Amino acid sequence: MNKKEQMEFLSQYEDFWGHLSDEEKEFVCHNTEYVTYHPGQNVHSADLRCVGVLFVRKGCLRVYIMSEEGKEVTLYRVNPGEVCILSASCVLSEITFDVYVDSEDLTEVVVLNAFAFAKMMSKNIYVENFSNKMKAIRFSDVMWTMQQILFFSFDKRLAIFLYEELIKNGPIIRYSHMEIAKYLGSAREVVSRMLKYFEKEGIVLVSRKEIEIVDKKKLMERL
Amino acid sequence: MNKKEQMEFLSQYEDFWGHLSDEEKEFVCHNTEYVTYHPGQNVHSADLRCVGVLFVRKGCLRVYIMSEEGKEVTLYRVNPGEVCILSASCVLSEITFDVYVDSEDLTEVVVLNAFAFAKMMSKNIYVENFSNKMKAIRFSDVMWTMQQILFFSFDKRLAIFLYEELIKNGPIIRYSHMEIAKYLGSAREVVSRMLKYFEKEGIVLVSRKEIEIVDKKKLMERL
Repeated sequence: MNKKEQMEFLSQYEDFWGHLSDEEKEFVCHNTEYVTYHPGQNVHSADLRCVGVLFVRKGCLRVYIMSEEGKEVTLYRVNPGEVCILSASCVLSEITFDVYVDSEDLTEVVVLNAFAFAKMMSKNIYVENFSNKMKAIRFSDVMWTMQQILFFSFDKRLAIFLYEELIKNGPIIRYSHMEIAKYLGSAREVVSRMLKYFEKEGIVLVSRKEIEIVDKKKLMERL
Repeated sequence: MNKKEQMEFLSQYEDFWGHLSDEEKEFVCHNTEYVTYHPGQNVHSADLRCVGVLFVRKGCLRVYIMSEEGKEVTLYRVNPGEVCILSASCVLSEITFDVYVDSEDLTEVVVLNAFAFAKMMSKNIYVENFSNKMKAIRFSDVMWTMQQILFFSFDKRLAIFLYEELIKNGPIIRYSHMEIAKYLGSAREVVSRMLKYFEKEGIVLVSRKEIEIVDKKKLMERL
């Protein structure tokens, strides 16, 4: 992606781009970079550098927290056309917590560096508002996750996960049990056990490489 | 509090008041109300009317979520000089979840009604940004709570709670075990058991009416 293509891509973010002066657009142009991340690559973490605002073009970013003991809880995913704002947390005064961001697929992003973004926020109220609005959207995502973890029993949570995958990508699911466990803030054993139970109930077929949803109706009864 | 006093109080919220035109200040004046809530009174809930933005003058508001089975998890508290924004959730498009708000003490607030606030947001970018900024601050509060619940073992969480109370209000704590359990997203029995354990360790003295912190140094070793 050359600079012109990068700017064309950013212009789709109307809330952001639509309120910039020509001078500011020029400034953005000098402070962005086109980056590709490999599946599984760490993009941002608390103790490393503060990457900046990530405008996702292709692929998917996973945003998560991690305990001192290494337990991970996925907060949400950032999909194409969306923005990863918490990767600029070092310049966001209202954000007092740290997250990790990993690339899940081959992910293409346009990165606006954190310090350039901070400078723009201090001078343009629309940019500051864009930043705060993106945080508010993720606040809602996190509340959803929190309610899943705290209130829903695990069979329901796994059923919701499988149902969402069915709707998005069809009946064949290629995530490992470990990946599903991470996504649901649980342990691999718990996922494997529940999948075995779902298999006995005739909802799924589990093989080493994939999970196949064989009875949509029965799955929906679990939601 | 008469209207003049209400407006003087609101003028302390510089991020909000500082960016209003005279006309908008007049509009605010016509759409605010001074309200007192009793301890334990419900102020806002998902299924009831959408109260509006609450500017807290005295007392304390508790913001929490509740499962279908009635399990409560306290997200954060809103103290004097702060703003309760989620009580206007019906007009906040980025907020897709529902919370409950209860008054903990005798709480005095100035309420700006939700529809007046929505109208102001649509016309004044600074008001919209104020709203989004308040959400971002609460996002950080919720992330703190979530990490407490998911990652910290319960003794550590209870110790942190007692220590914070010690710093704020001194060594005598008058919350019931049930109230502490609600605050920590746990059960009364778990709190009572852990307090008994802390008592054996010489950290606290537990009587029917209160908890006294008797050894600050030992308590701090638990943090």
